[in-house]
Amino acid sequence: MSGTFQTRLANIATEMETVLAQVLPEPAGPQKRVMEAMRYAALKGGKRFRPFLLVEAARMMGHESLGVWHAAAALECVHVYSLIHDDLPCMDDDDLRRGKPSVHKAYDEALAVLAGDALLTLAFETLTQDIIHPDAKIRLQLISDLAASSGTHGMIGGQVIDITASQTQQDEALITQLQALKTGALMHYAVIAGGRLGGASRDDLRNLSRFADALGLAFQIRDDILDVEGDSTAMGKHTGKDFGLGKATFVGVHGLLGAKAKAKDLGEAAKTALEPYGHKADILKASVDFVLNRQK
Amino acid sequence: MSGTFQTRLANIATEMETVLAQVLPEPAGPQKRVMEAMRYAALKGGKRFRPFLLVEAARMMGHESLGVWHAAAALECVHVYSLIHDDLPCMDDDDLRRGKPSVHKAYDEALAVLAGDALLTLAFETLTQDIIHPDAKIRLQLISDLAASSGTHGMIGGQVIDITASQTQQDEALITQLQALKTGALMHYAVIAGGRLGGASRDDLRNLSRFADALGLAFQIRDDILDVEGDSTAMGKHTGKDFGLGKATFVGVHGLLGAKAKAKDLGEAAKTALEPYGHKADILKASVDFVLNRQK
Repeated sequence: MSGTFQTRLANIATEMETVLAQVLPEPAGPQKRVMEAMRYAALKGGKRFRPFLLVEAARMMGHESLGVWHAAAALECVHVYSLIHDDLPCMDDDDLRRGKPSVHKAYDEALAVLAGDALLTLAFETLTQDIIHPDAKIRLQLISDLAASSGTHGMIGGQVIDITASQTQQDEALITQLQALKTGALMHYAVIAGGRLGGASRDDLRNLSRFADALGLAFQIRDDILDVEGDSTAMGKHTGKDFGLGKATFVGVHGLLGAKAKAKDLGEAAKTALEPYGHKADILKASVDFVLNRQK
Repeated sequence: MSGTFQTRLANIATEMETVLAQVLPEPAGPQKRVMEAMRYAALKGGKRFRPFLLVEAARMMGHESLGVWHAAAALECVHVYSLIHDDLPCMDDDDLRRGKPSVHKAYDEALAVLAGDALLTLAFETLTQDIIHPDAKIRLQLISDLAASSGTHGMIGGQVIDITASQTQQDEALITQLQALKTGALMHYAVIAGGRLGGASRDDLRNLSRFADALGLAFQIRDDILDVEGDSTAMGKHTGKDFGLGKATFVGVHGLLGAKAKAKDLGEAAKTALEPYGHKADILKASVDFVLNRQK
């Protein structure tokens, strides 16, 4: 199963590269620098785990289409925009991302702000297109879901808590909320969007939602563990940083062993949520093990 | 007519304040600082000229609804986001906006980036809602138009040219393109969105488009004139800055008198485009005089 999973993940990353290259504007005109910065940030990098979740959730529901790939590209644009803005000097001040200089280092801060803005804008534009799904209401639902997942009650809200949390008491409720918003919301969107494109029923959406919430939190706990244990060369970014900064992390609250146990429990809950789908859920279940064991 | 125009503009600004206060998230939770920053930037300020254009274009087509107001609020959110990001130290570095400290001064840079991101996200979310228009395809068209107007081939593209244009030859073609993208694209969207909500035909959209393009360029030329002639107290921002920075402006190319003549010609063209609508176009035509004569 693990071999199959790695192959599927790698194949999706390859496909994603092709679709992203089509969706991103071709650098041209006097504003081409920002288009170059968008491509620099979005192409040739990343595990494409969010697109994987979207594509595989749709597949589990028996659906595959070019629209699914374009929806996955839109989602990845939002993820990449968040990385660019989070890396800015006024935010997390990271000069390394996916093993390359961050956008504000490779270009400059102004272009980093604008490239992020443009990727967010492009994501919504992409989701309006007919190719996504023939039903206009489904497209609107995806746009609405994506905005909710990435706005003040989603990813942005999580980032706001994150940049202020070092001065706040590190209680577990706050960290869980932070991570549910900052990382969890977009993973939740990925799985639900795949479900919606695949014609998921209300019950299906409930199951997918439980899966996504547990997986998203496990993912972040693993991130916190890697921040302490990880190898910065393998990670492609600096490690030990969040913990060193006194940022709120699960390792800070539970200790290393406690955090690992919590991640394992969440992984079990994620798999259980997909029991109704039998072998059709094998790949998504394998993704849980990937999240729990990943080294970067 | 002018009296009527001023009243209508003021009334729309008042209504806009109410609708924006409803559309913006109520500050709550550990991420409330970003919601406060959004309200600080979006409420109590501005002429609301873009919402005015949207509402009055719809009215000219005989349409008025709560959806028009919400669409106008979404548009204003995009305008405000662009101001917040443009004011950042890495961009135009303006510490004064609408007579108040810019968001990065009143809060901090990280919150300014995130508040801008959140306003852009909120704009798209708002346009997905049923209240905008009963036809899902019209809502999708508005989202698609807004993304195109504010992306790399619209407002963001214009800003990119602007921040690099001081090192570039100030030729008229480039300045016109810069302004068509940076200011014109969103005004064009305002007029077209009002038209679409009002059931405009293809011919109507062509007329509205000609009106909006001429008006948008006249608006920016007036901005350039005010940058040289204006009173910084009346403007609520520093003047003389663009010209002093050697930025590409119409005054730089045409001189003051030449720029004024060009603005006047564009104003005539804008009015001519609305001839087919007779007296129904009176308010939009009056807005042309407002643009040409405004002191701030």
